[in-house]
Amino acid sequence: MVDKPTPDATRRSEKSRRAIYAAALALVGEVGYPKTTVEAIAARAGVGKQTIYRWWSSKADVLLEAFLDLAGQTARAAGQEPDAAVPDTGDLAADLKAVLRATVDELLDPRFDVPARALAAEGVVNEQLGREVVSGLLEPQLQLYVARLRSAQAAGAVRADVDPRIALELFVSPLAQRWLQRTGPISYDYTDTLVEYALYGIAPR
Amino acid sequence: MVDKPTPDATRRSEKSRRAIYAAALALVGEVGYPKTTVEAIAARAGVGKQTIYRWWSSKADVLLEAFLDLAGQTARAAGQEPDAAVPDTGDLAADLKAVLRATVDELLDPRFDVPARALAAEGVVNEQLGREVVSGLLEPQLQLYVARLRSAQAAGAVRADVDPRIALELFVSPLAQRWLQRTGPISYDYTDTLVEYALYGIAPR
Repeated sequence: MVDKPTPDATRRSEKSRRAIYAAALALVGEVGYPKTTVEAIAARAGVGKQTIYRWWSSKADVLLEAFLDLAGQTARAAGQEPDAAVPDTGDLAADLKAVLRATVDELLDPRFDVPARALAAEGVVNEQLGREVVSGLLEPQLQLYVARLRSAQAAGAVRADVDPRIALELFVSPLAQRWLQRTGPISYDYTDTLVEYALYGIAPR
Repeated sequence: MVDKPTPDATRRSEKSRRAIYAAALALVGEVGYPKTTVEAIAARAGVGKQTIYRWWSSKADVLLEAFLDLAGQTARAAGQEPDAAVPDTGDLAADLKAVLRATVDELLDPRFDVPARALAAEGVVNEQLGREVVSGLLEPQLQLYVARLRSAQAAGAVRADVDPRIALELFVSPLAQRWLQRTGPISYDYTDTLVEYALYGIAPR
């Protein structure tokens, strides 16, 4: 039983964990990914370097978990479960618009925007980190859209021959590019329009 | 007449200009944007720093022109004019697919990929540079699609109430995101599929 943490130790761990996430997100936003070190995260969080290495194997691991935690907090603040499925009310357009509007809110929130840009920028030139960000953060979110589009296919609202993994990019990727590369403004009207165009096409019906 | 360059001086200038473009693109790919300096570009190109400052006001200016020149070379190698309009054969799907296939080739070419990633990564976190890249490089290319979609609207191939500047993102942004963030493989089949989905929608017709 000696290995089982006491309630006090668990609380202390949870507090350290939150301090480490906050320190990692703040640092990467301030100095960029290359200059964010485990030492600097530890110093800012007020813990020893060994505390970080007990839980994570690298700064990339710390940061990916910190982003997952931030996304979970944002979801809870919006009254949702973290990693909740895309809602399925039977109205595909309305469900997609609702989720994309929540994403607009997140992208425009500096708590997310600043550290997420730093991580995304590094992922563009650092292939290993880029692939970790995709497999750990992006792809699990995209799979929630895949599931919703499959359910829409079963209900006859999306053509059976459509590949859901490609189809979701018609509304997700334009928003991602406007955010990442600042190719245009981001708004609810904009994401609503993307959903309409993606579902019904730009050619006359 | 003393200010008019002799043919020899023009040739020397043109040779220096090409050497400077090549040096700038190589350096940014090797060491990243922040460590690419006008001094280092000059040294690598075998010219004096003052030669660069005679023609450009900053390293960002040099790099943007170097990319425009590279895009022009790629277009000429493919038998097209630089900044040529999207072809208008009357078959919108075929015209968009052809241009996107050429973009796939460019994105998969290391001569473009390596320096372009370095510039794009910096643009994600450096808002001023990001906006220069958009206004100098990206937006002029996107406007070629806007023109083609407007012509398609006039011909009745795209609905009149569609905003062409948003519609083009349905096929351009997914390709951009797969390239930038490595969210999936890039191929002709993929971009052909994007065009089909964008034109006809994913909902049954």
